[in-house]
Amino acid sequence: MEKTHVAIVGMGTVGSGVARLLLDHGDRLARHAGRVLWLNKALVRDLSKDRGISGLPAGVLTDNLQEILENPQIQVVAHLIGGIEPARTIMLKLLESGKDVVTANKALLAQHGEELFDRARSLGRTIAFEASVGGGIPIIANITQCFTANQIISLRGILNGTSNFILTQMSEKGLDYNRALEIAQNMGYAEADPAMDVDGSDAAQKLAILAHLAFGVRIDWKDIQRHGLEAFTIEDIRYAEKLGYRIRLLATAQLIDDNLELHVSPTLIRNGRPLAEVRGPYNAITIVGDAVGDMFFHGQGAGQMPTASAVVADMIDTAAGRTDITFRRLQLWSDRQCEIELTPYARTLGRYYMRYLVADEPGVLSQITGILGNYRISISSIIQHEPAESSDPSKVPLIIMTHVCTEADASKAHEAIGQLSSVDSRCFKLRVSEG
Amino acid sequence: MEKTHVAIVGMGTVGSGVARLLLDHGDRLARHAGRVLWLNKALVRDLSKDRGISGLPAGVLTDNLQEILENPQIQVVAHLIGGIEPARTIMLKLLESGKDVVTANKALLAQHGEELFDRARSLGRTIAFEASVGGGIPIIANITQCFTANQIISLRGILNGTSNFILTQMSEKGLDYNRALEIAQNMGYAEADPAMDVDGSDAAQKLAILAHLAFGVRIDWKDIQRHGLEAFTIEDIRYAEKLGYRIRLLATAQLIDDNLELHVSPTLIRNGRPLAEVRGPYNAITIVGDAVGDMFFHGQGAGQMPTASAVVADMIDTAAGRTDITFRRLQLWSDRQCEIELTPYARTLGRYYMRYLVADEPGVLSQITGILGNYRISISSIIQHEPAESSDPSKVPLIIMTHVCTEADASKAHEAIGQLSSVDSRCFKLRVSEG
Repeated sequence: MEKTHVAIVGMGTVGSGVARLLLDHGDRLARHAGRVLWLNKALVRDLSKDRGISGLPAGVLTDNLQEILENPQIQVVAHLIGGIEPARTIMLKLLESGKDVVTANKALLAQHGEELFDRARSLGRTIAFEASVGGGIPIIANITQCFTANQIISLRGILNGTSNFILTQMSEKGLDYNRALEIAQNMGYAEADPAMDVDGSDAAQKLAILAHLAFGVRIDWKDIQRHGLEAFTIEDIRYAEKLGYRIRLLATAQLIDDNLELHVSPTLIRNGRPLAEVRGPYNAITIVGDAVGDMFFHGQGAGQMPTASAVVADMIDTAAGRTDITFRRLQLWSDRQCEIELTPYARTLGRYYMRYLVADEPGVLSQITGILGNYRISISSIIQHEPAESSDPSKVPLIIMTHVCTEADASKAHEAIGQLSSVDSRCFKLRVSEG
Repeated sequence: MEKTHVAIVGMGTVGSGVARLLLDHGDRLARHAGRVLWLNKALVRDLSKDRGISGLPAGVLTDNLQEILENPQIQVVAHLIGGIEPARTIMLKLLESGKDVVTANKALLAQHGEELFDRARSLGRTIAFEASVGGGIPIIANITQCFTANQIISLRGILNGTSNFILTQMSEKGLDYNRALEIAQNMGYAEADPAMDVDGSDAAQKLAILAHLAFGVRIDWKDIQRHGLEAFTIEDIRYAEKLGYRIRLLATAQLIDDNLELHVSPTLIRNGRPLAEVRGPYNAITIVGDAVGDMFFHGQGAGQMPTASAVVADMIDTAAGRTDITFRRLQLWSDRQCEIELTPYARTLGRYYMRYLVADEPGVLSQITGILGNYRISISSIIQHEPAESSDPSKVPLIIMTHVCTEADASKAHEAIGQLSSVDSRCFKLRVSEG
């Protein structure tokens, strides 16, 4: 059987997983690829470190990128280093030396996708990136191959497993944010610096890639409005539960008449809806296509072997020749005209959950509902409890769920309410998923 | 842009949907295929029938298959006629005249797959069949492309939308089977003759295809043990609910140490598990791979446009060249050696739900539990209610949930219990999903 020589650049968690699949399950992979995927080189920073991979033939590990770039036998390279530099420079060098690349680095694609894809196209090379979004969930292949008869209408996903794990810990174990984060870090679900995961940036980078693929819109991920776990507290989780909802960090792309809404926000989702039931470090995505209807995917969004599974599937597709066919037709960082426009965030429509701490005195509710009325926001439900014994008895929590209104009106009303002298300055506003 | 001429054979529900996508959304499809899919001919039985498709150019409709077979321009044909003959003969003729075929006919593949795939391979042609299982859910592509780095360990699915719709009507609206079937027929979810849908045959045909793809085992679908909706009544649905379960018609393929269990059975699934939450005419599939972990898909398993979406995606893949690469490496009706053996049904392991109507007299429970004990079946829970006022007061329902045992032991014990003089002859035994 013919051999395709492959290499791995970066032998961290995912890289080691890819090496294990290549070494331990070569027969299985060869059957699907129609050729042997032969691990020729694996680039590491420190040659002396033990990676716990049995069966790694002598001479495979190297700390010299040139050994991969200058080896004409190597055709496919799994590029598994995180961050922007030197990841970007290395990917460019790989493409320029004639390698097809498979990557899991969504931050790099979100930031430099245009440059990298342009270079790959002009060199006749390919970049495959299934592992960059949704871990083991094959969302890229499904959008680019399986749903090609459809205009995608909406795409809503829980794309960050770290924040979903933290959210589940908070709601199911009653932990506060800091304690839940600590557990996520101890269990390896959160980085030492979890900022990008919990502030919505990681999900926004993934959403930018998916939205670009599915709708052709090109957007800098930094321009996607995003809120993270800072936007609410465990009290909001409890009130949401009383109302029959769960809070999830939701990435949304929604097409309405050639206008596309994009945002990442903690969102109340009604219990029982598939996205509300996603627990722990899992990811899930709902896609609606105009022909296929609604489709739901759920699986492990990160972790060594699920991500390695996606990387190796891409390596097989690349070796077998499918990636070449798909890559040339992607609506991703191409110069294809796009007729879809982005809806300014202020004009997006939604329902809202608002929580205030208000003085327990006459007239307050009338002031608040008056402000909402001025912005023509109608109220779908309202909860005002007596103060808990332990808390300040002169302040009571007030929760309002609105009907559909614009983000601009919701924000202005919310701000005006927060400025009332009878309302505490610490107040919260979250999106509510319709349906 | 280059054109690929395509044809449709069979302009029923799905065929008309495919024509609509080709005619109304040609630009979209061309973008993904890299070429225009040009509808050259559509074969119908009755030329005079109005199909309500606007924009069908003159001369496209024909009632003469030869016009397709003898037209060398036509490269890809959507073969959308049901049943075995003349569907089989027509597919062979299409392959022999040099056409690549896309089909939704799982009954034909399940019955004559070997002959058809052999012929296609020897002629250098391809057969794509995404629409044959799971309707709009791209389960074939996911198994054959996205999870190729994995050994699939298990595959469990609700593969028949008709029976799931009936089940949901029964459990949510309290209807009996006949009334629920009537509604399914009125809503177009069930055929005039629903036998294959409700007796598990349709699901067994789909399971045979999936098991063959995922595990390489070649099995005649008729050899897959299957039970359908006849195996229980609305009372079982109610008792299952009391125990915290729902009943679903589940197709199961489970690999244990190179031995594969295959069966289709009404199964109790714990509330909250994804498969228990599948309602109405939807399909859903859980796949476990040794690298990717567990993955869940949910979507419309039938219907005009979801099925047409899958057919057209296959036509795009075929025109673009991906199908050719994939088809040559499929573990489906190939002469590849398979090391996996099928577990005889009697040796499969499971938990069981058993329901009896027993005489309300001393000693009966001891007799029954004695029989279970003789077969070393231990009981996980037991319910015995007082008789309902309306029913025969001398008989009481008894429900037993067992721990894991073999199908053989469960069947023998169940039969022995049913033969006790104090037990009514009408008694029920269903599988219970573990976990």
